[in-house]
Amino acid sequence: MSIYSDRLTAVRAELARQGLDGFIVPRADEHLGEYVPPFAERLAWLTGFTGSAGMAVVLADKAAVFTDGRYVLQLAAQTDASLWERRHITDEPAPDWIAAHAGPSARIGYDPWLTSQEALARFTDAGLAMESVGANPVDAAWTDRPPPPQHPAVPQSLDYAGRSAAEKRSDIGRMLQQAKQDAAIITDPASLAWLFNIRGGDVPFTPFALGFALIHADASAELFMDPGKLADETRRWLGNEVSVASRSALQASLERLKGRRVRVDSANSPVWFAQRLRAAGAVVVEGADPCLLPKACKNATEQQGARNAHLRDAVAVCRFLHWLASAGPTGDETEMSAASHLLGVREAVADFRGESFPAISGAGEHGAIIHYRVTEGTNRPIRANEVYLIDSGAQYRDGTTDITRTIWTGPDPAPDEIRDRATRVLKGHIAIATTVFPTGTTGAHLDAFARRALWQVGLDYDHGTGHGVGSYLSVHEGPVSLSRLARPVAIAAGMILSNEPGFYLPSQYGIRLENLLLVQTAEIAGASKPFLRFETLTLAPFDAALIAPELLDDSERGWLNAYHARVLAEVGPALPTDARDWLARCCAGL
Amino acid sequence: MSIYSDRLTAVRAELARQGLDGFIVPRADEHLGEYVPPFAERLAWLTGFTGSAGMAVVLADKAAVFTDGRYVLQLAAQTDASLWERRHITDEPAPDWIAAHAGPSARIGYDPWLTSQEALARFTDAGLAMESVGANPVDAAWTDRPPPPQHPAVPQSLDYAGRSAAEKRSDIGRMLQQAKQDAAIITDPASLAWLFNIRGGDVPFTPFALGFALIHADASAELFMDPGKLADETRRWLGNEVSVASRSALQASLERLKGRRVRVDSANSPVWFAQRLRAAGAVVVEGADPCLLPKACKNATEQQGARNAHLRDAVAVCRFLHWLASAGPTGDETEMSAASHLLGVREAVADFRGESFPAISGAGEHGAIIHYRVTEGTNRPIRANEVYLIDSGAQYRDGTTDITRTIWTGPDPAPDEIRDRATRVLKGHIAIATTVFPTGTTGAHLDAFARRALWQVGLDYDHGTGHGVGSYLSVHEGPVSLSRLARPVAIAAGMILSNEPGFYLPSQYGIRLENLLLVQTAEIAGASKPFLRFETLTLAPFDAALIAPELLDDSERGWLNAYHARVLAEVGPALPTDARDWLARCCAGL
Repeated sequence: MSIYSDRLTAVRAELARQGLDGFIVPRADEHLGEYVPPFAERLAWLTGFTGSAGMAVVLADKAAVFTDGRYVLQLAAQTDASLWERRHITDEPAPDWIAAHAGPSARIGYDPWLTSQEALARFTDAGLAMESVGANPVDAAWTDRPPPPQHPAVPQSLDYAGRSAAEKRSDIGRMLQQAKQDAAIITDPASLAWLFNIRGGDVPFTPFALGFALIHADASAELFMDPGKLADETRRWLGNEVSVASRSALQASLERLKGRRVRVDSANSPVWFAQRLRAAGAVVVEGADPCLLPKACKNATEQQGARNAHLRDAVAVCRFLHWLASAGPTGDETEMSAASHLLGVREAVADFRGESFPAISGAGEHGAIIHYRVTEGTNRPIRANEVYLIDSGAQYRDGTTDITRTIWTGPDPAPDEIRDRATRVLKGHIAIATTVFPTGTTGAHLDAFARRALWQVGLDYDHGTGHGVGSYLSVHEGPVSLSRLARPVAIAAGMILSNEPGFYLPSQYGIRLENLLLVQTAEIAGASKPFLRFETLTLAPFDAALIAPELLDDSERGWLNAYHARVLAEVGPALPTDARDWLARCCAGL
Repeated sequence: MSIYSDRLTAVRAELARQGLDGFIVPRADEHLGEYVPPFAERLAWLTGFTGSAGMAVVLADKAAVFTDGRYVLQLAAQTDASLWERRHITDEPAPDWIAAHAGPSARIGYDPWLTSQEALARFTDAGLAMESVGANPVDAAWTDRPPPPQHPAVPQSLDYAGRSAAEKRSDIGRMLQQAKQDAAIITDPASLAWLFNIRGGDVPFTPFALGFALIHADASAELFMDPGKLADETRRWLGNEVSVASRSALQASLERLKGRRVRVDSANSPVWFAQRLRAAGAVVVEGADPCLLPKACKNATEQQGARNAHLRDAVAVCRFLHWLASAGPTGDETEMSAASHLLGVREAVADFRGESFPAISGAGEHGAIIHYRVTEGTNRPIRANEVYLIDSGAQYRDGTTDITRTIWTGPDPAPDEIRDRATRVLKGHIAIATTVFPTGTTGAHLDAFARRALWQVGLDYDHGTGHGVGSYLSVHEGPVSLSRLARPVAIAAGMILSNEPGFYLPSQYGIRLENLLLVQTAEIAGASKPFLRFETLTLAPFDAALIAPELLDDSERGWLNAYHARVLAEVGPALPTDARDWLARCCAGL
């Protein structure tokens, strides 16, 4: 592990050169999102830790890495205890650790491109003297840092986007006018993709073209993106009201906003923007990214795209499930070979653009690890008489999918206790799928429907019930979720949400049943106010071997039979005969 | 209405004398609670408006009264439009109205005893120059103001309180020590009653002895209460560690806190305290009233007291329901006579101390008015073939009750639509009563269980599902409620909550079914973490004439039959034969 010792030493030398007593290294790029391109993997380069959430703190004589409960074991395995203290990020937050170990007047550096105003406040609230750095000390030490990604940005056709970028800009411009704001800063690449109707390939699993934008109240916009990513066709697609410049032009553009009211999302954008705007004499107005809500509410074209993508994806998923059932529990197939077979059948689907996240393929005890990702080191056979969980999704030009099914491999019947748990998860899934609710309802109000059947016997699952999903965009999309911790944003028509209750018995097995749902207006005669309902998008059978029919009430059984009949009717015709016959058996009424 | 003109003129003269351009008059006393004694009914004296929520603003040439949707009609009826603009308090908040109608540098007065820091911030955030007054201008004009209430404070025996005041003070003292706070300000009379194990009679419906207290981290306390209210026995009951002084000594006590860290509830206590403490050189630390949570979690003695009180109350309620059924829909009985008959049977119950709120007795269309309060002017007969709603409660020395039943008067069967609605309300009631949930759950997570059956057909009710209830204290007790707007405070063992879903068809009828619930630890073999459940305290039959059994599933029918069997077994033996026979018919299984 001596390379990590060398790297830490080099970063400390750079800190000394900059006159800093410490420096924080979050796992983040300049868009503060979930996926980080290799050139921005500073935390992994410095510490060896590759988890998706974490932060390092380097002081002159001490250093620590922080992560959450999901990654505690991985953190210990990947980092050198002689270099790094390993800490739980909520039990002992980084600001407290610094306050305890640095001197009272220590100057702690941060990179304003990698830190939001909200995140910075947690350090300053702890009484720390935080200092914005002009050049990141890690970058100075990281001599062979890869270049930023350079994938071309391409138009997302109106056949899939449904609304022109000019109309979207005009909607956002009107929104800014109403809020008496002159411009808004856009730093979320998903918002960029939605606003300009473009897609790219700069990060894995999500078709982002990384960049920044300024949108003005007159509906004109400035896009800051390496011009090398924009072919002539894409330039024409952006139109005359969108100027394009490289990121180096950003500061000059912000300086032109002197005296203007500029909307900045202080939780989700780098604090650099607010700092530069204030220095330029602009008025910073706190406000969520204005694209967030309109992007989440898919238009009719995007909704039809989602249906089409889900139907094509369903054919691949059903072929995969049929293959798995036919391959049988011979022990020849493994978690990796199964995931790779699924990817193979998806690659044959029209308009497939890649996976929407790394598939979670977990047999037996691995299914109980909620964010399990199989590696050569952990890969194991899928054996007879065990539970196998497969959570996967795909990107298509017309939509993003995300589905989890849980299978009993047989040939013996599943034990009663496992069927009981799986049926309770299914009851929760059905409770969400069938609920009708008034406008104004948030995900925190609905989440318990998915848990009730488990709660009644003293069980639960330690994750949210659902997340938003983009339209050929991120498989995790805000601002709405189904969770007790959901933000107070109302669920609205056109949103796509996952419905994925689960149950996990550590070291034994995991169950999760996931479909995507599309929020629709509920047409109810005599309704006293507007109501919403869910349309299920995902089409694949639930394994009858894991269902205890006596635990379902009449309406639950009715929903399941109707859902399976729909799966057979919609997916069956696109399957080869043997798979169609198998599907018909899976979809027989209970 | 010329007296109100005279009063407004007198207040304006006083404002001019004090050099103020305006003054705000909230409907509040110095405890900022729900019930206001007559001497503090400044809003009613000044404007004529007697609703339980509102505020007046007096400017030199304009004045306005604000209230919420419940009281819009009452506000219009009770106030003189030539003197007062009438405004909706959320559609056009008072701060905005002042900003629109007063000059930019207007000096707007407020009484720091009647305004919390949080409420004051809404005015200063609107850019208003708010000025604390030393003497309330309304009081100067209100020459025949009644004196403050002077009811004796009496000990609440340990047989009912369950934990000595010394132990409670010591608990709170430890809590303050852990939070590194030297003292806490107590301004809520419910906290005073709980902390010192005393009860009084200063406001209607709730056994408060009005006063203030300072509790120190060493568990000693200072009680500020008119010494005339404290007989020798009560003085002895308070013990040596509690000093007693009149309110005029309060300021000197706060000044002795110079340099100390003092906890103040900025949302629920008058801003006078924080202002005085700061002026005295104390450090004001924001924090909820430390009695709030321990008071809400009833100890074993209080829990048993609640059961006992509910059983005795149930005998009275069942006698009343039997009387109502026997009186029959002859048209001789009215909303008022029925409420008064119910009060009569309750007065015969051991340890009865009064109603816990004014009974809501609403026949037909009056049942649809959620906060209906019958008056001589609105009183009407209870007729044949209509819905009658009675929501009432009592204070007993060992507990507080609150129950709503809805009756079909007959003799014809209830229309299918009404039975459908009532059964959906019952399904919601049962869903709450039977739910099991993990610790950490809040009322916002459970509220939707009560609404689901209504939501499925496009219906809902426009109030929360439940509120906390005190132990021989306020019938509306914080900090927990069952509501989509519930504060983020977890439901905990020992809390008492109402369960009262409803349905209201305006101008037609109202349905509400309310029992009180006691939160208990759920003992579940194999549970993966701690779970809670509800024990139903209230014992009275639900009217079978309003139940459509075919809408209940097996488990709902099972709950209802078991509940009715319990009602008959527990209440039946205490009833006269004819009432017992009637109850047995009511409690026959479905």
